[in-house]
Amino acid sequence: MKKFIPTLLTSLMILSCGQLQASDDAKTSTIAASSPKNIIMIIGDGMGPAYTSAYRYFHDDPNTPEIEQTVFDRHFVGNSSTYPAAESGYITDSAASATALSTGIKSYNGAIGVNVNKQPVETVLEYAKQSGKRTGVVLTLQINHATPAAYLAHNVHRYNYNAIADSYIDDGIKADLYFGGGWKYFIREDRNIVDEFIQSGFHYIDNYSEISTIPANKPVLGLFAETGLPWALDDTNKYRLSMMTQAATKQLENDNGFFMLIEGSQIDYGGHARDIAAAMHEMDDLAKTLEYLETYVKEHPDTLVVITADHSTGGLSIGKKTERSNPNINSKYLWKPEFLRSMSMSPETIAKRFIDKELSLTQLSELLSFKITATDMENLQQAKLADHQIVKQFKLLATDVKKSKRKPRPYQSVFNVITKIIDVKTNTGWGSISPSGTHTGIDVPVFAFGKGSEMFSGFQDNTDIAKKIFTLLGKK
Amino acid sequence: MKKFIPTLLTSLMILSCGQLQASDDAKTSTIAASSPKNIIMIIGDGMGPAYTSAYRYFHDDPNTPEIEQTVFDRHFVGNSSTYPAAESGYITDSAASATALSTGIKSYNGAIGVNVNKQPVETVLEYAKQSGKRTGVVLTLQINHATPAAYLAHNVHRYNYNAIADSYIDDGIKADLYFGGGWKYFIREDRNIVDEFIQSGFHYIDNYSEISTIPANKPVLGLFAETGLPWALDDTNKYRLSMMTQAATKQLENDNGFFMLIEGSQIDYGGHARDIAAAMHEMDDLAKTLEYLETYVKEHPDTLVVITADHSTGGLSIGKKTERSNPNINSKYLWKPEFLRSMSMSPETIAKRFIDKELSLTQLSELLSFKITATDMENLQQAKLADHQIVKQFKLLATDVKKSKRKPRPYQSVFNVITKIIDVKTNTGWGSISPSGTHTGIDVPVFAFGKGSEMFSGFQDNTDIAKKIFTLLGKK
Repeated sequence: MKKFIPTLLTSLMILSCGQLQASDDAKTSTIAASSPKNIIMIIGDGMGPAYTSAYRYFHDDPNTPEIEQTVFDRHFVGNSSTYPAAESGYITDSAASATALSTGIKSYNGAIGVNVNKQPVETVLEYAKQSGKRTGVVLTLQINHATPAAYLAHNVHRYNYNAIADSYIDDGIKADLYFGGGWKYFIREDRNIVDEFIQSGFHYIDNYSEISTIPANKPVLGLFAETGLPWALDDTNKYRLSMMTQAATKQLENDNGFFMLIEGSQIDYGGHARDIAAAMHEMDDLAKTLEYLETYVKEHPDTLVVITADHSTGGLSIGKKTERSNPNINSKYLWKPEFLRSMSMSPETIAKRFIDKELSLTQLSELLSFKITATDMENLQQAKLADHQIVKQFKLLATDVKKSKRKPRPYQSVFNVITKIIDVKTNTGWGSISPSGTHTGIDVPVFAFGKGSEMFSGFQDNTDIAKKIFTLLGKK
Repeated sequence: MKKFIPTLLTSLMILSCGQLQASDDAKTSTIAASSPKNIIMIIGDGMGPAYTSAYRYFHDDPNTPEIEQTVFDRHFVGNSSTYPAAESGYITDSAASATALSTGIKSYNGAIGVNVNKQPVETVLEYAKQSGKRTGVVLTLQINHATPAAYLAHNVHRYNYNAIADSYIDDGIKADLYFGGGWKYFIREDRNIVDEFIQSGFHYIDNYSEISTIPANKPVLGLFAETGLPWALDDTNKYRLSMMTQAATKQLENDNGFFMLIEGSQIDYGGHARDIAAAMHEMDDLAKTLEYLETYVKEHPDTLVVITADHSTGGLSIGKKTERSNPNINSKYLWKPEFLRSMSMSPETIAKRFIDKELSLTQLSELLSFKITATDMENLQQAKLADHQIVKQFKLLATDVKKSKRKPRPYQSVFNVITKIIDVKTNTGWGSISPSGTHTGIDVPVFAFGKGSEMFSGFQDNTDIAKKIFTLLGKK
């Protein structure tokens, strides 16, 4: 794999930082007095408007007559279009959209911080670092995944995971804090990048419990999983994004301010998997993160928080035309999120358990928090047989054939039946045209609060968001 | 059918108007100087955010490198939640949402201008009329359909079409202009309401060509179809909503101003039918209407235009994960609206033609403006046989059994195949959970321009829109 050498980066301030910089950089003084000291950019990956709308009803307290507003409702300010550069059509992927949000230019799907000519383009995070601010990324996938990579790296393609991880050292360390997953890419046989971070003065942790022990004013690398963190529904801390964010704000605070990227990464995974339960609980973690930041901004009013999505995923729709079987509800259209609220294990983990051992109808109903039917159970048993068959057939393939195929997930059919059961129970729909989840071209919502938030009102393109942040950072 | 006698209406000014009122009503003087003289409220029925986003790409000129902004992009100001009263769950129908938009209160699905206790609630149109403004409704369905009815009438259920039509006379004539369809309900065996309008001093027309001949300063009833107007794609004037709106603004102009409700009614029908072609061309007519109103507001800056949707329909999603079959397009996600732009006949009419006479693969390809396959043709032939069978079986039913069933559309199976062919060609998806289109609970966009438009920015509930309009009308 050819190493990508960014030409523009030579003009950027590259830190090999033992201690965090807290100097009065010349650039800082040029920033307008109205600019926020701290900027927190949040991306809900795949969080199209159906997700924020659905979350309102998922979040609703059925014991009160009113529908409670969500933290998203309180801070909604506008919408954003997300289309990529013309050569990639109208529907963006996470890389092109994150590149638009990080640099202010349209690029092709797959692009990481590069333009359509595959040349690097400066990102808001790089500019903030160069301006003397501390910088950080907090997410629930590997820290070299498309979204953070588009702020931290320049590469021709998002899937060059190792090269992107390498660049986090080789192109200069650009952030003072990294929280997410990624052992697979950062502790490799050919290179131990974690060690290199430690050599560069970083404090390294690999367990949530260590977050409280990070020394003040020291740069920190926190990797908590091989690739992505577990689903919110399965994690030891269901609100791990919120927990990491709380620690990150405290760690990054300094006189020059900070720029932090936060990603609610796995909402998108919920959409691709057509898994409304997982998606809503990821939304819940993101909402908790925003609620924490509401209090943070109250205490630190010179902080701006901007939230948007890179695209929407899966063609999620909530509601179905139904028979009026429930005489108490006067409607022919219903969405029933009540079956999602009390779930405490992801459909994926339930599927794995069902494959691994015999679970009764009662046990499954308990895990799903609603009663499944005998027909559901039959469908699950059939799916289990299908999964066994698929795994068996894959094992029989010659080694070279195997390499060309994707290894089947040994619980995929069971997982599909479980999510379908949940969809039918809750009246949740997904785009009909695609056999698997897809990105869709719908505009995404923009939320903002704190200093400078009024700049993000109304309709804008995703590139405009980067341009506004550059302006707030004082870039001429 | 029990006639609904509104109690609150006794306190409203009921007009049996021979000539339009142009008096200086006492109320008018109480309106703040910052209030617009004319208010134009526009509802795109079913026009959720997937429709306005999709329309941008449908509307895109492929001969230019940039994506052109639409009239919706230019005037986007916020989002609105749409949920009905708690007794109807989270997903609204057109009646409850129009009632929220017309009165400012939440009601049950089906409600027409009444609250959950089935009591009438004053509407913004009634208040405007009472304040001395002229009022009008312009739409592409029958004028007693749910949306206009929620501004003009008070009834326990939207489907009481005859009673609602009756109320347009019996409860006092509330509008000075009605453009839409509805002969079926207004010229009946038991009552000729058109005649009663004429007796009350109305000028009546039943053909688009007569719109240019309406005498100035005379109230006018224009009914142009039995129920709804033809699809935009099939109508003699593809831009009939725009054409009617142009005439209506001129007709309603007066010193006291006017309140007009415009509805792009059939976007919703496109969504229910899962017909992206019909839906996009309905959007195009609405966009043309807004573009006309942009020029109108420039010439009449004391006019406010507010546009929103009552809900979204069908779970529309644009884009599909595809193989990279086109090497020119660097993306695995594509939506391909190019196949929709040059269509000049609705899928429904194409289906009818296919049922009525033999059409070759070439003829069908011409009608669809893209080449269909031999497999498509086989599927259509099979659907045709199915349709013949369904009609035959219905004919064999006893008369009393027939009455309890809905008469089948003799081209439904063919229509379903045609729209599926279009979906596959364009990568258009619909909510997977429902066999037929449904309403979904996603928040809808709000657009506004002209005097007072800044009031509609940000997140709001649909009831807030009515409250803001009441405020602008001077209601204390």
